[in-house]
Amino acid sequence: MRVLGIVVEYNPFHFGHLYHLKRAKEKVEPDFVVAVMSGNFCQRGEPAIVDKFARTEIALRMGVDVVFELPVVFAVQDAGGFAKGAISVLDATGVVTDVVFGSESDDVEFLKRVATILHEQPKEYQEFLRVELKKGYSFPNARKYALMRYFSHMGWDPSEVSKLEKSNDILGLEYIRSALEINSTISFHTIKRVGTIERDPEFKGKYSSATAIRNLIRKGSMEELKEALPKESYEVLMREMKHGRGPVLLESMGDFLLGFFRLKDEEYFSRIHGFSEGLEKRFVECAVEARSYREFLECVKSKRFTFSRLRRIALFAVFGLEKEFVDECNRKGPQYLRLLGFTEKGKELLKVIKKRAKLPLITNLSLYKKILEKGEFSVDKGLFLKQLELDVKATNLYRIFLPAMEERKGDVDFYTHPIFLSSET
Amino acid sequence: MRVLGIVVEYNPFHFGHLYHLKRAKEKVEPDFVVAVMSGNFCQRGEPAIVDKFARTEIALRMGVDVVFELPVVFAVQDAGGFAKGAISVLDATGVVTDVVFGSESDDVEFLKRVATILHEQPKEYQEFLRVELKKGYSFPNARKYALMRYFSHMGWDPSEVSKLEKSNDILGLEYIRSALEINSTISFHTIKRVGTIERDPEFKGKYSSATAIRNLIRKGSMEELKEALPKESYEVLMREMKHGRGPVLLESMGDFLLGFFRLKDEEYFSRIHGFSEGLEKRFVECAVEARSYREFLECVKSKRFTFSRLRRIALFAVFGLEKEFVDECNRKGPQYLRLLGFTEKGKELLKVIKKRAKLPLITNLSLYKKILEKGEFSVDKGLFLKQLELDVKATNLYRIFLPAMEERKGDVDFYTHPIFLSSET
Repeated sequence: MRVLGIVVEYNPFHFGHLYHLKRAKEKVEPDFVVAVMSGNFCQRGEPAIVDKFARTEIALRMGVDVVFELPVVFAVQDAGGFAKGAISVLDATGVVTDVVFGSESDDVEFLKRVATILHEQPKEYQEFLRVELKKGYSFPNARKYALMRYFSHMGWDPSEVSKLEKSNDILGLEYIRSALEINSTISFHTIKRVGTIERDPEFKGKYSSATAIRNLIRKGSMEELKEALPKESYEVLMREMKHGRGPVLLESMGDFLLGFFRLKDEEYFSRIHGFSEGLEKRFVECAVEARSYREFLECVKSKRFTFSRLRRIALFAVFGLEKEFVDECNRKGPQYLRLLGFTEKGKELLKVIKKRAKLPLITNLSLYKKILEKGEFSVDKGLFLKQLELDVKATNLYRIFLPAMEERKGDVDFYTHPIFLSSET
Repeated sequence: MRVLGIVVEYNPFHFGHLYHLKRAKEKVEPDFVVAVMSGNFCQRGEPAIVDKFARTEIALRMGVDVVFELPVVFAVQDAGGFAKGAISVLDATGVVTDVVFGSESDDVEFLKRVATILHEQPKEYQEFLRVELKKGYSFPNARKYALMRYFSHMGWDPSEVSKLEKSNDILGLEYIRSALEINSTISFHTIKRVGTIERDPEFKGKYSSATAIRNLIRKGSMEELKEALPKESYEVLMREMKHGRGPVLLESMGDFLLGFFRLKDEEYFSRIHGFSEGLEKRFVECAVEARSYREFLECVKSKRFTFSRLRRIALFAVFGLEKEFVDECNRKGPQYLRLLGFTEKGKELLKVIKKRAKLPLITNLSLYKKILEKGEFSVDKGLFLKQLELDVKATNLYRIFLPAMEERKGDVDFYTHPIFLSSET
């Protein structure tokens, strides 16, 4: 049995995602497709445009068989933590055999080679890295130069290392490295990806990026939106918005973030993951200086930090993710498989997953204590609870930002069943 | 020299306030009037409708000569803490000779008698209180019964004690008790007050309560508002609203509060002043359950807690006011005199205050470190900083809720000079 695993956000699901899914299926010819998806907050450090259940429904209608949630502590991290969480979830299903990801270089052998070096840390590489760091380079640059020297040392072309500058390749590298770390037997494959399209904020019909699509929603350009999205995605999105369950945009939570930061001091921020090089001081000063969240981000911006990274760090601060906690999560990985949805076909796969899973499977959140008591798995109970409570908190906060007051009740995680898509619909 | 001290919120200044000011002046025939006023948050546990500088301007135009800020840690407390802060500020000016307050009983001698018992704690009273508490009565009830027994014991009419059930009398009692505690020589006087009018939410023209007036603003009934307010108050209010610096209503900050509480756990709330009897659990549950702040308050409501008290406790939680900190504040009182504004005439009084003040006078907040270094006063430097930082934080949070984005910059406390009203205007 071949099972394709994919790592997605679908914020929202667009033609690029459809293309990726199609090509990935052609490549692997899987019996089933399993996705691990970000919940209500994404790696760009933003809330998702509609909630995880609506996005799960779209994923199922577009051809995914089973969707699991990437716990929020991983979903809002940079490449390393995000990949560790995502690959661990896919691996823990016990069924995923192949993972396909978009890649600018489309050179999976090169990525595997680098991932192996980073994982095995051969002595020569360590020495090169030590020397480059001593020269005063930042870690990413020192790592690049050390890799180039190691490539030369091995008689490989050092210029290849320059491939490691594109975001999808960096993420892919981390997927493979995570797999090595957890001794996963998953095989990796790439699909050629043109990196620039993804961030293009302009409307380009079927070829619009997720950013461009969110801009259409922001502006209320529904006719263009219809053109930019597959029918299923458009329908669910429109239904959610009609009921006031979306859109949730970064600006929906901007005032909240700004107010929250105005109440905190440097000491608070300095305990949070991602704060270094005086960023805690800038957070305090800029929260007071800025009149809006946009101004806040511009104020804290420096060469060392991209906007995405700053938005992510801001979410760490709001969720109170302390350094030790995030480190522990990245070391031990996710502690559960949280099922978000499945199709009629996916039901068959779930039966196998129930037998083979390496982590407790959560289908009904209100039973999580029973799951823990059973103790069938060697999970860290404290970490299990912390990760799960954080997912619940994130959803509870998210719902405050929904346009419709009636929809703002919390704890929907406890009373929403996984989305089931039967064959007839 | 006689100086009248008054304790006010002016949220907003209405004809009832004007009446009180006039009657108080008739009673004391003062050379000057000094007010201690709540800053941007009031004792009802709500943000002020317009900010403290605008309300100071109105106070000056209505006949107050000097306005000091009641530090927020006192302004949002119940009668005891509020009174301790307010009377300490008035006393620390070194010039206030008389305080006049509204009173339902209008029996200042009775209030002084009770305040003296509560302050001196005679042995017999202590024993009565012990017995009543042992019977299982709540503290306020046990205190009432103990006082009745003590009155009998002294040969006074015990039924008098029933006067202690109206809010202005309770507050007045605490004023006098605070004065005893700090050995103040201030004399106290009362003005007869009909308690029910104050909370009447209906528009009654000139006789509208502050609650009714805030309702007019909420509904945008500006014609009726004009009728309900003295001209000066109306003008400043309209100017502030025109510039988007108001109105700030409880609902302006409702989503923020709800979101904030959804991120906190019982352990957090249990450290905060005012949480007892399982309220921390209800805060956690209701924050998730409620779809709006109004629903939240209704959900946490119980017989033991009034809505005002719950709103206050909610502010304690947002500002992170821990039990030990509030206790210390109530023991040691305010650590500074923060000048908000003065008239031409008030300038003369300020010269005297500068000589006689018992606490450091802050006219320019950016110089507060210098003030501390001078060390002319025996203040608790740590507490001084904490109280001041809290005032600044409160203002910074308050401004997030202003309607106009351009006005939302923080730290206005540092760059706003005290309001000065010259004689010509």
